[in-house]
Amino acid sequence: MTAPGAPPTVDDLPVRPELRGKSPYGAPQLEVPVRLNTNENPYPLPEALVARIAERVTEAARGLNRYPDRDALELRGALARYLTDTTGHPIAAEGVWAANGSNEVLQQLLQAFGGPGRTALGFEPSYSMHGLIARSTGTDWVAAGRGADFALDADTARRAVEEHRPDVVFVCTPNNPTGTAVPAETVLAVHDAAQAVRPTLVVVDEAYVEFSHGASLLPLIEGRPHLVVSRTMSKAFGAAGLRLGYLAAHPAVVDAVQLVRLPYHLSAVTQATALAALEHTDTLLRYVERLRAERDRLVVELRAAGCEVTDSDANFVQFGTFDGPGGAAEVWRRLLEHGVLVRDNGVPGRLRVTAGTPEENDAFLDAVRAVMKEYDR
Amino acid sequence: MTAPGAPPTVDDLPVRPELRGKSPYGAPQLEVPVRLNTNENPYPLPEALVARIAERVTEAARGLNRYPDRDALELRGALARYLTDTTGHPIAAEGVWAANGSNEVLQQLLQAFGGPGRTALGFEPSYSMHGLIARSTGTDWVAAGRGADFALDADTARRAVEEHRPDVVFVCTPNNPTGTAVPAETVLAVHDAAQAVRPTLVVVDEAYVEFSHGASLLPLIEGRPHLVVSRTMSKAFGAAGLRLGYLAAHPAVVDAVQLVRLPYHLSAVTQATALAALEHTDTLLRYVERLRAERDRLVVELRAAGCEVTDSDANFVQFGTFDGPGGAAEVWRRLLEHGVLVRDNGVPGRLRVTAGTPEENDAFLDAVRAVMKEYDR
Repeated sequence: MTAPGAPPTVDDLPVRPELRGKSPYGAPQLEVPVRLNTNENPYPLPEALVARIAERVTEAARGLNRYPDRDALELRGALARYLTDTTGHPIAAEGVWAANGSNEVLQQLLQAFGGPGRTALGFEPSYSMHGLIARSTGTDWVAAGRGADFALDADTARRAVEEHRPDVVFVCTPNNPTGTAVPAETVLAVHDAAQAVRPTLVVVDEAYVEFSHGASLLPLIEGRPHLVVSRTMSKAFGAAGLRLGYLAAHPAVVDAVQLVRLPYHLSAVTQATALAALEHTDTLLRYVERLRAERDRLVVELRAAGCEVTDSDANFVQFGTFDGPGGAAEVWRRLLEHGVLVRDNGVPGRLRVTAGTPEENDAFLDAVRAVMKEYDR
Repeated sequence: MTAPGAPPTVDDLPVRPELRGKSPYGAPQLEVPVRLNTNENPYPLPEALVARIAERVTEAARGLNRYPDRDALELRGALARYLTDTTGHPIAAEGVWAANGSNEVLQQLLQAFGGPGRTALGFEPSYSMHGLIARSTGTDWVAAGRGADFALDADTARRAVEEHRPDVVFVCTPNNPTGTAVPAETVLAVHDAAQAVRPTLVVVDEAYVEFSHGASLLPLIEGRPHLVVSRTMSKAFGAAGLRLGYLAAHPAVVDAVQLVRLPYHLSAVTQATALAALEHTDTLLRYVERLRAERDRLVVELRAAGCEVTDSDANFVQFGTFDGPGGAAEVWRRLLEHGVLVRDNGVPGRLRVTAGTPEENDAFLDAVRAVMKEYDR
């Protein structure tokens, strides 16, 4: 409680007890020359696409007094075609669902399949929103571990599932923040071990899959109605500002999330903008090629600079290890002094850098080399 | 369970037990000549505003590769100025929060102040999403009643709060679907009676307040950090397709919802479009004047046609009573045969019609008169 006479703070309000003393999730939004902290795509959308967005949004704005298509069918059809074209696995609009960022997709999945009295499990370190959304939906959270070099093999994963008997399992591949790809055999082991205990939803978070050396695990949904793949337009489509996440699964899963989604959750301008971006898929995927090459360069150069680097299949690279005074937080601060913002995800001794433009990556590498000279690991 | 060999349905999946057999919320989205069923504003946005939206969205699209302003500060400032200008009660951006529709605002409030082990109370019939969002956030729901003619007086409201001792109370004014305004003294009675039991959040849902004969209850938040006013741009701003809801409250309440909001929940295109609409407030509020006049005309003409009509402070009118064969559902069906879509909200013997353009309202009134001749109440 605050002092008498002082204005009330959150802790004076009747918020849920588990929220007391907590801080909002989110990386610092700082204005610095080189921002490589939130895995954004550094390439602005091409002007032809910006013009097409303006056209599509103008059309949508003329009908903005009406509610949007509640089922977003045109958009889900376009996303289904994108998935079919890029994975070779045919999927229809009925097996695709979209929401405001993959965070909202995951929240809807947990509202339908998790919640009070149920447990979700993830293999940490991983995308921390999995655990945060689990908790905010009243789902118990189990943080299982990963193996050496942050890999996740079938045996480790299977044992965790058999021990904790979760209702929902998250597998992030490529894994954020480590960059590690998870093999199909691990996902299948998780899936089969989980179903052997009880019907369990397995969510494969493929937010970064377009940057991977390997293929999407989307074809695994065939014949497995409890396996869901989640995706986003934030990374490969260069549209973090759009907040468009989606999932692919058996149509019954889509029916299930429709029982918990807020009606008209996806605005007409969001649907219009996403449709415009999907018309420009080929152009946007060419930027992905560039970023994969830059990601590979970062791995090589960081190793040459003396860093330990985790193999990466994403548009970011985890590097370290910083176990000297102040640890990774101190290196994070020193890089910021050089005008470079990277991410401290709380993995001991490690930091995460997003692959930016060649110029941004050069600036980052220069800063790392300078810091490595001063910092005593 | 479905028959062996049949494709799985929702009920074959491990969804939460309380979702089994349920249907998604939402009015039928039917293509008919006169759609007066979802309280949309019938006036498309003026072309000057459509052009301004295209400009603002073009600017946002050029930075779409970056995440949006997570705190939506410019938009919250513009909403605060709108509230200050229209209510005379000064409020700052720190006391305003925005999300994807007021549904998401209410969901965030219930995640922070409701949830498992807590109870929310509303006075039904009212906006059914209050109860649905309560349940989907694990909050127990108590449906208290209203008085004669759907009014809510201070004594009735106070007694319900004292009996059920809720953690969160919803008061919708003007009330959907009845159109009934709730007096300030009732809200104060609810607030004071609730606080006497335990610290309780009181949410005043003013989605339709711009259409009211009376004033906003926003000034009541002064000195009452547990009182929240929720609003939307869907109705008065003619922007149902935009999905922009907001709340005004003590800044500590805004801090509280930030603990449960999904990070970057509000897209850059949504923020840009809402900012453009707020620049055109004066034009849009002139449409509101027209709709208030049409609403008043509907009340008079429906009564002249022999209907019982609830006094309305909103952009819609509740009418009845249809207690003959098939009840309100049968009258709903017959109006649809005349090409007019209204809403059956489940209030026995009553239907709800949205005030449309003069032409739409004429078509509706003609249809009602025709149906009233045939239908034996």
